Amino acid sequence: MARWIWKFGEFEIYHNLLLHNRRTQYGWPSPPVWKVYSPDSCVRFTREISGRGGTIRVWARGEFAVTVWQGRRKTEYGGQHEIPLGDGPMRLSVTVSNRESFPCLYVEGGVESDESWLADDLAGSPAPADSCAWFDAPDKAPDVFPFACEPIRYVKKEPVEGGVLFDFGRETFARTHFRFSGVGDYALRFGESREEAMSAQWCVIRREVKGAAGADYDAQAFRYIFSSDAAAEVSAEYEYLPVTYRGAFRCDEAVINDVWDVAAYTFHLNSREFFLDGIKRDRWVWSGDAYQSLFVNRYLFFDRDIERRTLIALAGKPPFEAHINGIVDYTFYWMIGLYEYYETYGDLDLLRRLFPQARRIMAFCRGRVDPDGFVRGRERDWVFIDWAPMDRTGALCGEQVLFSRALQSYGNICALLGEDSEGAAAQADALQKAVLASFWDAEKGAFVDSYESGKRFVSRHSNILACLFLPMDEARRQSLYEHAILNDDVPQITTPYFKFYENLVHCEMGSGEGLEASIREYYGAMLKLGATTLYEQFDPTQSGAEHYAMYGHPFEKSLCHAWSCSPIYLLGRYRAGVKRTGVAYETFEVAPKLGDLKSFDCTVPLPKGQVRVRMDEGGVTVCATAPGGALLLGGSRYELEPGKEISVPSR
Amino acid sequence: MARWIWKFGEFEIYHNLLLHNRRTQYGWPSPPVWKVYSPDSCVRFTREISGRGGTIRVWARGEFAVTVWQGRRKTEYGGQHEIPLGDGPMRLSVTVSNRESFPCLYVEGGVESDESWLADDLAGSPAPADSCAWFDAPDKAPDVFPFACEPIRYVKKEPVEGGVLFDFGRETFARTHFRFSGVGDYALRFGESREEAMSAQWCVIRREVKGAAGADYDAQAFRYIFSSDAAAEVSAEYEYLPVTYRGAFRCDEAVINDVWDVAAYTFHLNSREFFLDGIKRDRWVWSGDAYQSLFVNRYLFFDRDIERRTLIALAGKPPFEAHINGIVDYTFYWMIGLYEYYETYGDLDLLRRLFPQARRIMAFCRGRVDPDGFVRGRERDWVFIDWAPMDRTGALCGEQVLFSRALQSYGNICALLGEDSEGAAAQADALQKAVLASFWDAEKGAFVDSYESGKRFVSRHSNILACLFLPMDEARRQSLYEHAILNDDVPQITTPYFKFYENLVHCEMGSGEGLEASIREYYGAMLKLGATTLYEQFDPTQSGAEHYAMYGHPFEKSLCHAWSCSPIYLLGRYRAGVKRTGVAYETFEVAPKLGDLKSFDCTVPLPKGQVRVRMDEGGVTVCATAPGGALLLGGSRYELEPGKEISVPSR
Repeated sequence: MARWIWKFGEFEIYHNLLLHNRRTQYGWPSPPVWKVYSPDSCVRFTREISGRGGTIRVWARGEFAVTVWQGRRKTEYGGQHEIPLGDGPMRLSVTVSNRESFPCLYVEGGVESDESWLADDLAGSPAPADSCAWFDAPDKAPDVFPFACEPIRYVKKEPVEGGVLFDFGRETFARTHFRFSGVGDYALRFGESREEAMSAQWCVIRREVKGAAGADYDAQAFRYIFSSDAAAEVSAEYEYLPVTYRGAFRCDEAVINDVWDVAAYTFHLNSREFFLDGIKRDRWVWSGDAYQSLFVNRYLFFDRDIERRTLIALAGKPPFEAHINGIVDYTFYWMIGLYEYYETYGDLDLLRRLFPQARRIMAFCRGRVDPDGFVRGRERDWVFIDWAPMDRTGALCGEQVLFSRALQSYGNICALLGEDSEGAAAQADALQKAVLASFWDAEKGAFVDSYESGKRFVSRHSNILACLFLPMDEARRQSLYEHAILNDDVPQITTPYFKFYENLVHCEMGSGEGLEASIREYYGAMLKLGATTLYEQFDPTQSGAEHYAMYGHPFEKSLCHAWSCSPIYLLGRYRAGVKRTGVAYETFEVAPKLGDLKSFDCTVPLPKGQVRVRMDEGGVTVCATAPGGALLLGGSRYELEPGKEISVPSR
Repeated sequence: MARWIWKFGEFEIYHNLLLHNRRTQYGWPSPPVWKVYSPDSCVRFTREISGRGGTIRVWARGEFAVTVWQGRRKTEYGGQHEIPLGDGPMRLSVTVSNRESFPCLYVEGGVESDESWLADDLAGSPAPADSCAWFDAPDKAPDVFPFACEPIRYVKKEPVEGGVLFDFGRETFARTHFRFSGVGDYALRFGESREEAMSAQWCVIRREVKGAAGADYDAQAFRYIFSSDAAAEVSAEYEYLPVTYRGAFRCDEAVINDVWDVAAYTFHLNSREFFLDGIKRDRWVWSGDAYQSLFVNRYLFFDRDIERRTLIALAGKPPFEAHINGIVDYTFYWMIGLYEYYETYGDLDLLRRLFPQARRIMAFCRGRVDPDGFVRGRERDWVFIDWAPMDRTGALCGEQVLFSRALQSYGNICALLGEDSEGAAAQADALQKAVLASFWDAEKGAFVDSYESGKRFVSRHSNILACLFLPMDEARRQSLYEHAILNDDVPQITTPYFKFYENLVHCEMGSGEGLEASIREYYGAMLKLGATTLYEQFDPTQSGAEHYAMYGHPFEKSLCHAWSCSPIYLLGRYRAGVKRTGVAYETFEVAPKLGDLKSFDCTVPLPKGQVRVRMDEGGVTVCATAPGGALLLGGSRYELEPGKEISVPSR
């Protein structure tokens, strides 16, 4: 079965390049702020043929030249479409050159293009070509990303300030087509909120139409559109990644169901070529944000391919000279995420393909360690962790914790591939010990952000990361939980980004009873104010358009942000209680918990099937369609048989 | 004075990319066969401003966004063309994104774009931007290479085989414009020879016109054009690098004057964005070919910029994973050429800019040394040296010689820049000793190609390279000269490429009397057969169209090849006798020699002037317009005073 093939990584590099060049703000293009790589302009595809070659038909994106080697005899076919190859053995070589998109190839006939072909850039070593099931016909080439599309209509049209305001009822990401009253100059403003669309000064996404009677735009984010032409008409098509909703959740509480639905929609909007941060302004791929999306995806779409694409795009190309997104912690999340990706899907092939770059990335990180073994931000490094006050003096606790976990992940990857990790596991171990020795404040019973400043500042962030990623004894873990996480004197988390990790800690530390309350109070309040997707950040004490301000501007907050979608993960993981225990879910456990709910009915995807968990005060019913599962309930363990429902009444 | 600026290297990378994607053969595109790099799609330009910024006007190729930092205060101007900067101190930052050509920037007004700006790719360290005097106005942007153009006309139009054959009188490189008798399908064939243009099967450069009444083509090589439309008309414009002919040569012998003129024209045709190999088929940049062009350029154009562009383009970008052009020796020539470039122009700035890549290139080479210190071809390496039979078993003598010289050159570069060469000079030294120990065959009195095969094969090539690049005592040098170079039993050199080095050896070893004979017999014979430019190779025993065949095809020999232009260098260097002795010609010597001539009048360029040397049997007259020169004649030394003629009669 022939497929379009390309040099591994180039599909992602190309679409990542397009994506990062699409951002605009206030009517101006807004170029990337980190290095975005370009595809190679020329790739050579080769295939050894032992038997009959037959006749082949060749398609490529770009110019191509076909050469056949029979021993040292070389026959050149140039860019001929149909070629009678004759009998093997022979080596078929097709060089494709393409500066517009990226070199890719489709061959059908006696020999077909697939991952048995090798590809190289005429300098590095040939490696298996990559492909994707989507691109399986000459006219389905990978330089056009195959989004799905469906017409949507505005629900309200309102004459206002001499123009007209369209309201599409909820946030969307859609292609738009405008017809105006005649040829003229018009202003269009796309707002996530009504206020934004009405703000001539601060609306982030806007277009100027010059001397035209109509205009068509690629998909962008909006709920409202203001047109300065009062007689304008607009049609739109929602553009989305075709993906199956494999997870589901319903419980007895409407607001939690609503949050789940809105989270699912928000997450879908942000799941495109890759996992985006938000759909309005950046629409970029941020590694720390994407890391959280991995969690959500596994309880909603279980779409391996988008995780794979995202990890490849973030890895970039050699030389690796700056942290991913310029952020120290984001490089670490990438490495941690790559190993967890393997654990989730058992995809050793991707580890193998990405290993050369993973090695470069780890060498870069290890090359920036200070003599005491700690990483500190160097020139042009962004030490982020979160939008929150922290004592960032010198070595920051959270960075060491993430670095040690990244080292451990890298060590695990090397072990799987039989590669030399150059002592990554030992370095991780030493670093973990050093963190305990340097950052633990016995008096405060928690980790401090910095041991160098002498300020002994305790943040939730350092302690949350330590709790999640740092091995330690239970007494210490309980201590930090009490003194840092349950301690109201420690400043609260304000972003859903770290709220997720905090909730994880609460759930893991056995006191996840506040999960529903947290969802209700934070996301429920957001929905009550009319949110149709989940915001980047939310402060219930604000009112009106205050909610839309961020980064020093009135409408720069993203009202549709991926990092806010964690309830999908948290409910599936800690209410349905589904947890992968073996690689690729060879084994998994179901340990359901009602929490603050009266009943729920939750479906969690598995690689080849799903597990449905229903629970109410009367008991639990579980059914998995794939093997390997066990129900853990009240101290008992029940093996799950595929397709067979198990019901356990409450005691 | 404002100029367009770009990230160092990107101008050359971009034009090199275009150039390598222009090759066609037999009607098909012929993609590159080595890695050709692409420019970064996004570059950030920054400039610290201490005083008043004033108002600036901004032009860019691509989208851009302007940001001004005043301390931590950030003001964003998006892509505005005119910006009032106000007072400093401030940091002006302009990010330019361009996928079509390459990011470049022009700023005029209170602050102007020039090499005081820094540029970076958002990952690596900022480094001084590059610029070129050509690009000094908003409408003179560097993505269009500023070739000059002038109309040329065919000298003959001949109806033939139902079509028409245009003869332009000599080889040229020109844009063409066709008008046909009406809308239709037509075949066009561009031939360096009449036979080639008339060969429907084997003409290398051809175009098919489909359903059109006219056609326009970018510049390409031809002397003859065949059109299948007998009523076709063609107009053409010769396209060339605007460059000054600063060297000149006239002597008493017409054939040598003709060879010089034809060599100058041939060389000019091949001197474009970079030094090309030949203008018809490859029109690519081959490092070994380009290395020889450096010699010729210094006695004809003395154009520093084309050397600089060529060295930058060949260096490529990181990671460096394969030899330049895939050829082991060509990487070594690049390093040798870079150091000689410095010696010629004193351009420490280029050394500094190229050093990071030079270090990667040398690390690559040194990483491929076998435990015995020798380099041997690895997988996918092409061990070339020349189109000639050699004993290529294991370590090849010529490669070691070139490697040791490259190591030495690198060591010199490091010393100039105060960089650590990691013992390059010592490694060069050890390698040179090892070459003497392993490859010298005392019985044969010469170097053998391979010591591993036991065949003790002596080629001219190994001995020529050793003679030119390997330190040794004079007795040994004399021995190899007699036993390998003057020995008719050793197979003759057949390419002008190595003929140049052989002539160098003859001239250096004091027995350069055969220079004129060699020019007469080889090039003179070529001209006698009607060559209007110098061929890639020439065998006087062949006849007719046999002369045009190479690489197994009837017309694949290049009839206009840069490596054949060495007479320009040889006559200036060994007849006028002009030799640089100090860096950048701070000192130079003139040691003229009549050789086999009765008289000559030769002008050789200097960095800031020229030196004219006239000689006949009566004596020598020399005049240099720049200081530092000395005339060496008959054992005497005469200091040259700028602008003052010195005449020394023969004794």
